[in-house]
Amino acid sequence: MRLRNIKNKEEIIENSKYIVLNPKDYKGKWSKVFNNDNPIYIEIGMGMGKFIVENAKANKNINYIGIEKQDNVLARSLPNIPEGLDNLRVIRLNALEIDEVFSKEVDLLYLNFSDPWPKVRHNTRRLTSNIFLEKYDKIFKDKKIIEQRTDNENLFIYSIEMLSLYGYALSEVSFDLNTMIPERITTEYEDKFMKKGNKIYHLKASK
Amino acid sequence: MRLRNIKNKEEIIENSKYIVLNPKDYKGKWSKVFNNDNPIYIEIGMGMGKFIVENAKANKNINYIGIEKQDNVLARSLPNIPEGLDNLRVIRLNALEIDEVFSKEVDLLYLNFSDPWPKVRHNTRRLTSNIFLEKYDKIFKDKKIIEQRTDNENLFIYSIEMLSLYGYALSEVSFDLNTMIPERITTEYEDKFMKKGNKIYHLKASK
Repeated sequence: MRLRNIKNKEEIIENSKYIVLNPKDYKGKWSKVFNNDNPIYIEIGMGMGKFIVENAKANKNINYIGIEKQDNVLARSLPNIPEGLDNLRVIRLNALEIDEVFSKEVDLLYLNFSDPWPKVRHNTRRLTSNIFLEKYDKIFKDKKIIEQRTDNENLFIYSIEMLSLYGYALSEVSFDLNTMIPERITTEYEDKFMKKGNKIYHLKASK
Repeated sequence: MRLRNIKNKEEIIENSKYIVLNPKDYKGKWSKVFNNDNPIYIEIGMGMGKFIVENAKANKNINYIGIEKQDNVLARSLPNIPEGLDNLRVIRLNALEIDEVFSKEVDLLYLNFSDPWPKVRHNTRRLTSNIFLEKYDKIFKDKKIIEQRTDNENLFIYSIEMLSLYGYALSEVSFDLNTMIPERITTEYEDKFMKKGNKIYHLKASK
């Protein structure tokens, strides 16, 4: 997500009640951050946060952690999160470091409208490449569940191939999520792509 | 495939040089039928036979066996197979009996434009249902490879889900095979569906 540069972004980010500035300190201990044993769902690339914030509002018995690497995005999204969501945290992180922040404690991972990295030579940068799948193996508690949405056919096909290769069973596969589930919590990108008439692909991968 | 009823179909079928009338007698011994140890590829639902006949012509070092259950289809397709294809045989069989005909000897299975059985209560009749996948496990020699083509989105999604559930890694996934590989051996249905403008889905499943 590209945004205009924001002044004082460091200050804005640090002043948020939701940010966890030293996430690696909590590796294996995220239940303590939330002070409960509820399931932990994370979203890599939370963008402006609509999806994770609405989920956190709707499901108080689930702990949500949004991951975003771009300061410009964080400085815009964090001030807009409503007060009082005890089950939500946000961390500033490059997803390549995800296994330095979580250890056997995540229940579900959302990959929503990730960068498709269209060039073949960049495919290991895709969030369903072997590089990432091997890291995800270390962060899940027990059962591993990944849910992906994208409007990019090539990324979706790549994900089907990689996830099945890594032993995930695919379910809830849809080539047109909006027809299948018109009423659902969406992301900002999802709304934008649907307005353009793009189809939304969805899959759930479990192992 | 529905065809006009043909007279003397039994006679036409029995007179074909390609038909193997008692296929269960050769369970585990199909290499002897071909008198060589070449790989064995089978197609369930060969229809009029275009796909398997053209493959048999093009790949003399592979043994092909076409499976078809309908006498009306066999009586029309068998007389049209050109002479001299030593690497081709045809059997009359309901696919439910496939594990009574083959045992640990098949290298690849083609499922081309199988009946999509659109009603959910009929989904175990689909050729990628658990019923069939468990039978296929018994017929493959070592590595299991299934290639599927269909123009039916629901069947394709069902296959992605079932095959990944049964431990197959998916590759060569395409939502538009004709754009991906315009020059290829097609089936009669494939030609017909492409003329109608339908997209052809393809996957290869290996375990």
